[in-house]
Amino acid sequence: MSLDTARLAPMANAIRALSMDAVQAANSGHPGMPMGMADVATVLWSKYLKFDPAVPDWADRDRFVLSAGHGSMLIYSLLYLSGYESPTIEDIANFRQLGSVCAGHPENFLIPGVECTTGPLGQGLAMAVGMAIAERHLNAEYGDDLIDHHTWVIAGDGCLMEGVNHEAIGLAGHLRLGRLKVLWDSNRITIDGSTDLSTCEDIPARYRASGWHVIECDGHDFADIDRALAQAAAHDSSPVLVECRTVIGKGAPNKQGTSGVHGAALGTEEVAAARETLVWTDDPFVVPEPILADWRATGERGGATHREWQERLRQSTRGAEFTARMGGDLPTDTGIDAYINALLAEPKTVATRKASEMALEVLTASLPAMIGGSADLTGSNNTKTKSTTPLTADDYAGRYIYYGIREFGMACAMNGMALHGGVVPYGGTFLIFSDYCRNAVRLSALQQTRAIYVFTHDSIGLGEDGPTHQPVEQLMSLRLIPNLNVFRPCDTIETAECWALALGDKDTPSVLALSRQNLPQLRTEGGNLSAKGAYRLRSAQAERRVILIATGSEVEVACATAEALEADGIGVDVISMPCMELFEAQPQAYRDELLPNVPPERLLRVSIEAGVTLGWDRYTMANGLRIGLDRFGASAPAEDLFEKFGITAGAIVPQIKAKLGI
Amino acid sequence: MSLDTARLAPMANAIRALSMDAVQAANSGHPGMPMGMADVATVLWSKYLKFDPAVPDWADRDRFVLSAGHGSMLIYSLLYLSGYESPTIEDIANFRQLGSVCAGHPENFLIPGVECTTGPLGQGLAMAVGMAIAERHLNAEYGDDLIDHHTWVIAGDGCLMEGVNHEAIGLAGHLRLGRLKVLWDSNRITIDGSTDLSTCEDIPARYRASGWHVIECDGHDFADIDRALAQAAAHDSSPVLVECRTVIGKGAPNKQGTSGVHGAALGTEEVAAARETLVWTDDPFVVPEPILADWRATGERGGATHREWQERLRQSTRGAEFTARMGGDLPTDTGIDAYINALLAEPKTVATRKASEMALEVLTASLPAMIGGSADLTGSNNTKTKSTTPLTADDYAGRYIYYGIREFGMACAMNGMALHGGVVPYGGTFLIFSDYCRNAVRLSALQQTRAIYVFTHDSIGLGEDGPTHQPVEQLMSLRLIPNLNVFRPCDTIETAECWALALGDKDTPSVLALSRQNLPQLRTEGGNLSAKGAYRLRSAQAERRVILIATGSEVEVACATAEALEADGIGVDVISMPCMELFEAQPQAYRDELLPNVPPERLLRVSIEAGVTLGWDRYTMANGLRIGLDRFGASAPAEDLFEKFGITAGAIVPQIKAKLGI
Repeated sequence: MSLDTARLAPMANAIRALSMDAVQAANSGHPGMPMGMADVATVLWSKYLKFDPAVPDWADRDRFVLSAGHGSMLIYSLLYLSGYESPTIEDIANFRQLGSVCAGHPENFLIPGVECTTGPLGQGLAMAVGMAIAERHLNAEYGDDLIDHHTWVIAGDGCLMEGVNHEAIGLAGHLRLGRLKVLWDSNRITIDGSTDLSTCEDIPARYRASGWHVIECDGHDFADIDRALAQAAAHDSSPVLVECRTVIGKGAPNKQGTSGVHGAALGTEEVAAARETLVWTDDPFVVPEPILADWRATGERGGATHREWQERLRQSTRGAEFTARMGGDLPTDTGIDAYINALLAEPKTVATRKASEMALEVLTASLPAMIGGSADLTGSNNTKTKSTTPLTADDYAGRYIYYGIREFGMACAMNGMALHGGVVPYGGTFLIFSDYCRNAVRLSALQQTRAIYVFTHDSIGLGEDGPTHQPVEQLMSLRLIPNLNVFRPCDTIETAECWALALGDKDTPSVLALSRQNLPQLRTEGGNLSAKGAYRLRSAQAERRVILIATGSEVEVACATAEALEADGIGVDVISMPCMELFEAQPQAYRDELLPNVPPERLLRVSIEAGVTLGWDRYTMANGLRIGLDRFGASAPAEDLFEKFGITAGAIVPQIKAKLGI
Repeated sequence: MSLDTARLAPMANAIRALSMDAVQAANSGHPGMPMGMADVATVLWSKYLKFDPAVPDWADRDRFVLSAGHGSMLIYSLLYLSGYESPTIEDIANFRQLGSVCAGHPENFLIPGVECTTGPLGQGLAMAVGMAIAERHLNAEYGDDLIDHHTWVIAGDGCLMEGVNHEAIGLAGHLRLGRLKVLWDSNRITIDGSTDLSTCEDIPARYRASGWHVIECDGHDFADIDRALAQAAAHDSSPVLVECRTVIGKGAPNKQGTSGVHGAALGTEEVAAARETLVWTDDPFVVPEPILADWRATGERGGATHREWQERLRQSTRGAEFTARMGGDLPTDTGIDAYINALLAEPKTVATRKASEMALEVLTASLPAMIGGSADLTGSNNTKTKSTTPLTADDYAGRYIYYGIREFGMACAMNGMALHGGVVPYGGTFLIFSDYCRNAVRLSALQQTRAIYVFTHDSIGLGEDGPTHQPVEQLMSLRLIPNLNVFRPCDTIETAECWALALGDKDTPSVLALSRQNLPQLRTEGGNLSAKGAYRLRSAQAERRVILIATGSEVEVACATAEALEADGIGVDVISMPCMELFEAQPQAYRDELLPNVPPERLLRVSIEAGVTLGWDRYTMANGLRIGLDRFGASAPAEDLFEKFGITAGAIVPQIKAKLGI
């Protein structure tokens, strides 16, 4: 297909007009990027991108990621113009207003055509790496007929400056993800002004150093863009960076090329001047019929391709399986129940990280969708199983990724994989390094992905590595993230239950916080008790005076405390609370049954968790006791630390007795 | 000075012996790195590093940063051998045990010769960038006579893979920090195995792309190391990376060169074999006198240099000023009191980010030690003042750093600057992106540095940018970090007070969470009321039935709620709580005075903060009300969002009345 420049220019200007008008109407937003990248995006969408506006979730569509998410009007314009049902022109006219799906930054949960939520810089590109991994993996599994697409990214200077970019391109280069194409909006402008203010980097050289192929083009010359994209599409042996030299805000005659056009409305005067420059005479949110028709034709091209693919799917012997897998459905019998029964018959004292590995051996064997990995802590996170052979550039069929020392890059890649569909990613690092990837965990939650984080070494129980490695605030801090389930199982059984729960929730990511140190198997009965978030593990024998609430490794401490108190005739319930979020979601009656609303002098509530106590007040009430660690840890063997910080039955019992006045 | 290889080899082997023996005794630790880099470190310390063991805090010493902090036995060995008072050989023999200053990872607060706490990978190098910035800045200010030193870093493959590395080297290259020298322990091994498992990067090419000079050497050939370090020391026009090709665990004959030697004791057999290889016949923790004497001589060289410097300091007209400044002392009259009085006379309704800028205009004018900056959000964070001209490669005397889109790199650089001494760094980004630099904020706290974070756009009050940019869990989550003061002022006066408090605490970092939106000036009296963390801003007029506790922009909402309730004859106290941590530190009597322990049916406590409510239970008690946002935000104008989420007086008043049964 040759390019008809005379038709492309007005198509690109339609993006510019919609973008500047929407931002102007909202008096808020970022016109510079959509106007600067309008020409490149028009060539990409009209000739290269594989998509069908009628079926936004077509499994084999190209993935398009607007990593520079502040330029959201670019993707809203593209989706509307090419014929997607959402957004409508009304949504665009209500850009950034309550109720409009055209949010300030693109949100995958608001618009089906938005592959992922972007805005936090660098993460779009890093998620695209995950999408490209998922594509190659499923291609290896199902063949070219069913999965064979590209992942296209538009990224700005900001995305390329963020540290996560380094991790993402390193991983992509190593895995030789040739289907990944990053179009860099190289306008040399950031919010503070020229990029010269803060960087001298030779970006193409850096990408080449990471195994990428680099192409350049004039981002406002349609023929040159076409040449560059053709070369990019054809180059399959490594990921490709296309430097698109652009002018930010192109079309706004007095402001283009400056940081002033980045993040604010152009103003009525400049909008009028831009209309003149662009020869755009229509009212805001009106796209002339011929231009709209040209745009809609781009969508029709994809419709035909999609129908051919559907025919191939229909003919495939694995079509139904493929469809179920892309839909995220997992087999109901994962083998985990039988495994739990075996454990009940023959209890095991192991670290919960080891218990996790044991559960994973079962799960990864029965669930081919699971793809594991670790940020260079495989042996410590216990994430590798027999079923998960390495996924490498030479074998995309593998199911274990050596992510390298790239926590943030890993978490973003996991999000991308989960969003791509067809795979269920899990990945490990130390709980302390959840700090390094925290915003990606947040994006897992915001995007409602099934990413599963295996965070081991979950307290001072890791011992000698000391305060830099001992999480004290991370557990509670992850619990603060909405739509994230933070599991902290206490033994082999709970660990298996939590894995089952994590896998069972398609729309909520999970954290499994796991111990380095060995823990006894405390559970003696089956049924997924963790599903309620908390349950009574042990009931008071003597008259009940105390309720101990504990998580993870401290449930053992709670049991020992209970035993000591019961020996003195003080009745104690022990509540294991592997998941605070699930407990909060229980009916009031269940919560009251576990934690009756009785004054503390009659029934003392005590929380035990080797971390900060802020947050536990919710369950202990003001006059309860909160056993924890409101300071940084120290370097010593684990048992010495629990002793030093008073997280032992011996240290807790006297405090409880004092509270009870005994 | 020519190198006497015959003496260097046993000196290096002393490091190896101490390292393997200490790890073996602890049965925990990382022998591979110290053994691999022993030769390089020996040349560096015996010939190039400027230090005086007798005075670890000598202002003009070279800074030595062990970025690969897990190799802590390397620095413990070096400090002991070269004659520092700490650690002692007993400390080393008690490596990783409770009470030993030789913690698993080096901690700056335990050993004076440890410049910074390292272990979380990448951050040591990134802090070194800050140290090198501080050095050049103070050099520009005080001249070569007083400040003229190098910053040497030992970093491993892990440090170079972390995303923060990209940000750090980009910043260092841009600022042409020629005094920064990074010695890369290039052993091609990570925990999971060969680096080939996870990376194909051409690291030297990447560093060159960021404006670094790269040198290579054989890390086990003393002459070659000497050549490389001489070249590195002489190259002053850009930062330098020295690739030291090493064998991890060098000297352990059966395990060297494998990941097995990275993070576990060698085992008694291999230790014995290593003794044979190294021809080391002494008992553990015994260093033969001649070898120790050679090591101690390295310290004496530095002593002479130090005495010469002291003489220059004595003769300098600015000696006393310089010493006070390096000691972190600030003038007592910063002008902030006069500024507050002016505000009281003429109240201002501005966003607290603007109020922060106003306070900063006063403070940066009177405190030359303050160095500001922003991660590419200068105009949004309001961090730039008239006094702070840009600090650039051409003008290190400047006091404002355009950090670029590098939040993590910025925070690490701030830590490095604060640790170097002589400067007080502050830096801005959006509160949401505290997630990107969270572990560096944690290290500010752990290291007890005076780094001041200006986190603006602190709630849904930022409006249209939507959920990716709206912090809901960040405020509470930062409060969980020990030794960090999180300030959320409600108006101009509190903002100035919080700045004064942040600057006044040498050993505790601060976060200032500031609004995007305008807020009225609520305070009508002076005295730093924020110093107590919380205070009664408004007392009940009618009989007191309610206590409202609010922070930042929600104090205005609390006042409006109080007004509405008082109009109905319900007495309401309003407590402004700009800093929860400082309030927690108040005597019980003061806390009880503000929040009397009275049953909720008689005195209802209500918290109002536009963020997650978990944590507020501490003050509202179980039966109180917690007004907040336990979900992600949305994209819309700010006032629409406060309305939507019920954080308005109109929405709160009926809830309070219902609770009171009115």
